[in-house]
Parts: sequence; structure tokens; C-alpha cells
Amino acid sequence: MKVGIGILGGGTVGGSLLQYLIDEKAAIVAKTGLELEVRRVAVRSLSKARTFTIPADLITDQPAQLVDDPAIDLVVEVMGGRDPAGDLVLRALQAGKPVVTANKELVAARGAELIQRAEEKGVSLLFEAAVGGGIPIIRPLSESLAGERITRVLGIVNGTTNYILSRMSDENLSFADALEEAQVLGFAEADPTADISGADAAAKAAILASLAFGTWISVDSVFREGIESLEPIDMRFAGDLGYLPKLLAVCEETAEGVSARVHPTLVPLDHPLASVRGAHNAVFVEGPQVGELLFMGPGAGGGPTATAVLGDVIDAARELLAEAQVAPRIRFAPGRLRDFGEIETKWYVRLEVTDAPGVLAKIAGVFGEAGVSIKSVWQEGRGDDATLLMITHDALEANQRAAVAALHSLDVVTEVAATIRVQSDEP
Amino acid sequence: MKVGIGILGGGTVGGSLLQYLIDEKAAIVAKTGLELEVRRVAVRSLSKARTFTIPADLITDQPAQLVDDPAIDLVVEVMGGRDPAGDLVLRALQAGKPVVTANKELVAARGAELIQRAEEKGVSLLFEAAVGGGIPIIRPLSESLAGERITRVLGIVNGTTNYILSRMSDENLSFADALEEAQVLGFAEADPTADISGADAAAKAAILASLAFGTWISVDSVFREGIESLEPIDMRFAGDLGYLPKLLAVCEETAEGVSARVHPTLVPLDHPLASVRGAHNAVFVEGPQVGELLFMGPGAGGGPTATAVLGDVIDAARELLAEAQVAPRIRFAPGRLRDFGEIETKWYVRLEVTDAPGVLAKIAGVFGEAGVSIKSVWQEGRGDDATLLMITHDALEANQRAAVAALHSLDVVTEVAATIRVQSDEP
Repeated sequence: MKVGIGILGGGTVGGSLLQYLIDEKAAIVAKTGLELEVRRVAVRSLSKARTFTIPADLITDQPAQLVDDPAIDLVVEVMGGRDPAGDLVLRALQAGKPVVTANKELVAARGAELIQRAEEKGVSLLFEAAVGGGIPIIRPLSESLAGERITRVLGIVNGTTNYILSRMSDENLSFADALEEAQVLGFAEADPTADISGADAAAKAAILASLAFGTWISVDSVFREGIESLEPIDMRFAGDLGYLPKLLAVCEETAEGVSARVHPTLVPLDHPLASVRGAHNAVFVEGPQVGELLFMGPGAGGGPTATAVLGDVIDAARELLAEAQVAPRIRFAPGRLRDFGEIETKWYVRLEVTDAPGVLAKIAGVFGEAGVSIKSVWQEGRGDDATLLMITHDALEANQRAAVAALHSLDVVTEVAATIRVQSDEP
Repeated sequence: MKVGIGILGGGTVGGSLLQYLIDEKAAIVAKTGLELEVRRVAVRSLSKARTFTIPADLITDQPAQLVDDPAIDLVVEVMGGRDPAGDLVLRALQAGKPVVTANKELVAARGAELIQRAEEKGVSLLFEAAVGGGIPIIRPLSESLAGERITRVLGIVNGTTNYILSRMSDENLSFADALEEAQVLGFAEADPTADISGADAAAKAAILASLAFGTWISVDSVFREGIESLEPIDMRFAGDLGYLPKLLAVCEETAEGVSARVHPTLVPLDHPLASVRGAHNAVFVEGPQVGELLFMGPGAGGGPTATAVLGDVIDAARELLAEAQVAPRIRFAPGRLRDFGEIETKWYVRLEVTDAPGVLAKIAGVFGEAGVSIKSVWQEGRGDDATLLMITHDALEANQRAAVAALHSLDVVTEVAATIRVQSDEP
């Protein structure tokens, strides 16, 4: 059973996929019964130098023509970015062609619209590769756990920042040095903004939360804070207190509504996510029936991402050949989105203070007035000055911020040197 | 869209599933668009006391009538055991009804036959819950990774033995004491034979290997060795050498063929599987494109297992309503099955020897003659006697056995006190 494949995008993932579909053609037929034939590959520039060869009879720089080509039964979109990828994907769905995409930015921004179009046309829109690279997480969330009332998803979904944080923790490097090292080794791009600002992780958090809770959450509703201002000294202090800093995507559903956010988070050292080092990704899922699940693996790279795309291609091709009117795997219903200020968080706060009687009482008073209670305090004196570390109990994010804002105006506080959120025990 | 469900089996999993389908009916409709209506539950005894209630109009002790009932569109088999479950599943498939089963024993024994029947009838046969309880692993292996040439699957797939081994390692308990504790806490059954002998894990290894490699491997071809003879002293020695003992399912594909086996294995402490403690399960998957993936979670229990069953039910119901002729997810082709003797393994050997000059030379000579080279040796003297620990390099399993057999006849060897296999770096 032959299926004609068109690939939009000739980058690392497109190249790995093309190569694999050519090299492993016979093995794929044996294992799945499907003859997946690449019939067109659309690239931005025909003349660009590549580390792999696209056969001359396949390559084109006309992506819309690829989509329209009657020989193309199924479209793979691995070009990335919102435009023109979004319109090309819509065009394919409109023509009744199933689409497999690895494009987290597009799915996070226009997923609801694209999924609706796919449903109207009765075709599949699959995006396993959009989150966690080669880690199967989209399919487990939207199929295996379709019947579970998932309460929380915690993810390390950006390998670049995890690499940088691992190096800062393990080797006491500054953020700037760890970033430079990551760039030299190819773990970070020349312009690392999307990674270190948390924007990439926020797109993935939006997708994970949407699938887990069945309510579409736009990336614009995802609170995010990057890792740029983290300092090695807080890594050390956190370690002494039994925590490791991670850039965490946190998706929660409670009786009050759903939420998704991305920020540096102190994770307890004995939590499974603390063991995720270097450029690896991991997703931790919690639900009342299933308990706790961990999915871990390579979160990026041509090979792993192409594997995830290929799994989707096989799935979509199988449905295409069944000539079924495909119902969507998950239906999205409106849900109440919680503002980040309403969410309970725990904070780690490092203050530089003058070491005089009554200082702690003044600081504790500020927290108390804001409705935040303090769980633990450590003070390290240095003559006239002292460093004060505090971890608060769970309290409203808005109150935590109000407390910290008020600290700035205390005369005994020289500097609010660091604030990092701490992982709560439950949503 | 209503789907009539019949449940074969009123045990823990059946009860959790029934309860959940009743309690969460509206939520499932909202999330999936499917109205899953339980119309019959078949139990062995109508009068048995249960911790949950089966509505009187649903309960029956006639499983074949349940299968034949035209109101039943989809059959869930959670009764366990080969008979009569196997014939009931076949009967349902024969009638064109999709089947979801949690029965690893049945799938491992008759999977090839059942899958073929499902294919002939164009209906789904799904069994996510058969391996790893609530951990999504069957779907990732057979769908997400359908295009990958998986080389190795390592699994901790039996929670009872993992609990016992964890307690032996952490608390220096004897096997008998750890087993008794597990029985008291409900982690082990009154008759623990299937767990501690490795039979349960062997069934799961057969399923994992079959799906990973696309060649059906019967449970009868799976080599197995249980944990009964492990001693705390070897736990301690292994720990000193940087290893932790686990009952591991090892499924491999090399150019020489496929294989599956279950035996106690010393896992390096820095391997992700070493962190899997207590009654948890985990599966580690390796492939050339995807790299290394880890799936971890609760491997048993009513809630987790029912969640996995429900995911399959939703998937099968969705396909049923699409009225598609369903193609199988994986096709199985004949493959060369390697005999365990042909496989390369590494061994840990503990010998009690007389402490005299030339002893090590004699022992090393025995290994050398069998074609096994020794990686490391530790000796601890106690006057006239000594304990000798050795770890060998990879060598043919048959040669490792020949070496150990020959040691028995050496006069300087008082006792071959322990042999445990050590995890190899690659298949």
C-alpha cells in the first residue's frame, strides 16, 4: 500500500527523515505494511549547501505546489516558524490531506484552529515531535491517558537551558560562561533568545497543558521567566538546601481552573526530574488513577525528532488507507484559565541585609502582612552585613510578589538578590 | 456516540474500570466525544464479596453470553489467565468486536494467533495494560517508534521483585525476610511463585520483544532465572563495585537475530534503571535514531492498570465508530531467534577458595580455557580461606557457564557461592 509523502523543509529533521525513509524503506514495509514514498521535498533555497543529498527529481522551492500535488497523499511540515508553515498546513488539511508537523511554535499559536480544520475534513493532524523531540509524550497524553483526569504535568522541555543549568550547578560556571560553552558545543544557537527566555518551553507548555486538560491554552496565556538572571551562588545555596534549579514547564488543573507557566524552579534532589541532566528532556505526569509517570529521552536533534515524525507518518498513513472519517483524539472544551497571580507558589528568596537586632522581625513582618508564611530561614553573617535565605510556604503568587516588592523599601534590606520559585508538593 | 462495553472479570482492575467509567462518564464524553456505557460485567462468582458494587442489572456469570450479546460492541478482558480468557477473546474477535485486554499471560502465550484473527476481522486488539501497568509503553513501542530499528529494550517489569530487591539492598534483609515483608504489605501474593521465578516478567519480555522487533517471540523462548537465590552479601559487594541488582527483562536485536531473557542483573548505579526503587516499573528503549528513552511509573494496581485499559478502550471505540477496516499497527515477520547460549553476557562470580599460592592462576586458567576473559578481581583473605569476586568481560553465555561448571571441579574452590549477570554496555 503506497502513500505519497511530501516534506516541507530541508533542514536537519527533514534531512534525517528523508534519509531514513530511503534507507529503511524495506524494513518499514516489513514492519508496518506501508510503502512510504517521498515524492517531493520543498526547501527555501535550492542552492543551499546541505550535509545530505535531496534527489534532484524531488527537490522544489514551491511549497504550495507540493501541497497541491495530487501525488502527495500526506504532508510532513518540518520547516518551523509560524509563517508560511501555518497557511501551508491549513491548505493541506483543506485538501483533505493528513498532516504531520514538528512545529511547536505553530501548534502552540494556531493549534485550536488547525485541529478544528482537521476534524472538519476528517483527517489526522499529528505533532508528536513538537514536544520532547524523540520522547513519545503527545500520543501517551492524548491516547493512553485520554480517560485520566490529569492534575499536573511538569516538564524539562528545553535541552539548551537544561544543559546550561546542569553546567552551572555541576561546575559552578556563570550563566554567561555556561551559555558560551553550550554555543561552542552546538547545544545553543548563535541567537539563544528563544531558549533562554523560556519562549520555546512556553510553546511546549501550552501544547502539553492543552492535551492534558482538554482545554486549548494559547502560548500567550503561559507565564514565562527565563534563566538569564540565575547566579551560581544560588545554585550552591539551593544544593545545600536539597534542591536543584531547573527550567520547568508547570501545567496544572485544579477545581479553580487550568494553568501553564515556565520559570526556573528549585526541584527537590530526590525528585525524578532532578536526575535529568545535560541536554535531555523529561516529562512528569500526575493523575489520581495512574499515579506518577516519567518520560525521559533526547529532546532535540535530527534523529530523535525524525523518529517521532515517522511514528506519526505511519499512524496517519494507516488511517488514510483505512479510508475512515477520522474523529479527533481529543476534543477541546472551554475551561477556566487561572491567572498566574491566583496560583499558589513557594519562593526561595536571597536577601542581603544589615546585620542588626530586629532585622529578621522586620522582614518576617513584611511577609506576614502580605499573607505569606515563612517555612525556613538561614542567616550567614559577615560583620555588619548578612545574607539571609528564606523558603516560604505555598501562598498566592500575587502575595509572594507583593511581599518581595515591599522588601525593596525596607531600609535594612540592601538587596533582594534572588527570587526563585520552588516546586510545590501538589497542584 | 454510544459504545456498549462488556467487561470480563470483576477483580481489582475490572472494579476500578467500572467505577471510573460510571463516575467520569461526563468527563470522558467531554474529552473524547465517546459515551462509553458498561452493559455487562461477567464474574466467576455472583456471590463473592467485593470492595465495590457491580449494579445488579449488569452482573452475570456467563462470559460467553456477554461476548455474544448484540448490545456489547467492545469487549474488555481483565479476568487474567490463559483459560477461558483466550477462547473468549477469540470469540469476540471472531464476532467482529474489538478487544482490550490486560492479560500478559494470554498475550505472551497466544498473541500471534489473536493478532492474526483481529487482522482478518479488521478490528483492534489492544493490550497496553499487559506490560508496565499504567505506564504507556505498548503504544509508544508499536506506534510512536514504529519506524525505528530498536536495538534493545531493558525493563524492570515486575514490581514485587523490584520491591524485594530494593529492600534487600537498602536494608540488608535476607530474601526470605524481604519476601515476607512484601507479602504483609500486599506487594507480593500468598503464592509469589510467578513473580519471584521471573515467569511474570518473562511474559512481559516476550511481548516487549515481539513489538520492538516485529518478530513474534513466544514466552517459551524466553530464558528466565528468578531472584530466589540472591543473597544480601552479594548486594553489598555489588554496591561496592558500583552496581545494583535488578530483575531485568532484556530484549535485544543484533545482526545475528532477536532474543529475550529475564534474570537478576547487576545494573551500574549511574544507569537510569538503577534509580527505579520499590514497586515501580520502568522500561528503557535504545535505537540508533532515537537514542535512549526511559518510561517509568506504577507497574501494577487497580487504578493505573484501569487507566491503561481505558486509554485502549477509547482508542478502539474511536476506530469502531470510524467504521474503518482497521489494519494492524505492527506486522510480524519471522525472524531468527538466538539461543541464550549464543548471547554475549558479563558475569559477576563469587567464589570461596583456599587462600594459597597459585589459586588465582588456576582459576584464571579455567576462565581462559573457556574463552572468557576476566575484567576485574577482588580477594578478601580470612586466614586459610578467602572470598574471591570476579567480573568477567563480555563472552558467550555458553562459555561463561562452561567456565563456572569447570570451577566446581577445582580442588582450590570450596564453593561457587554466587553467579549474577552484569548489564552489558550494548546489545
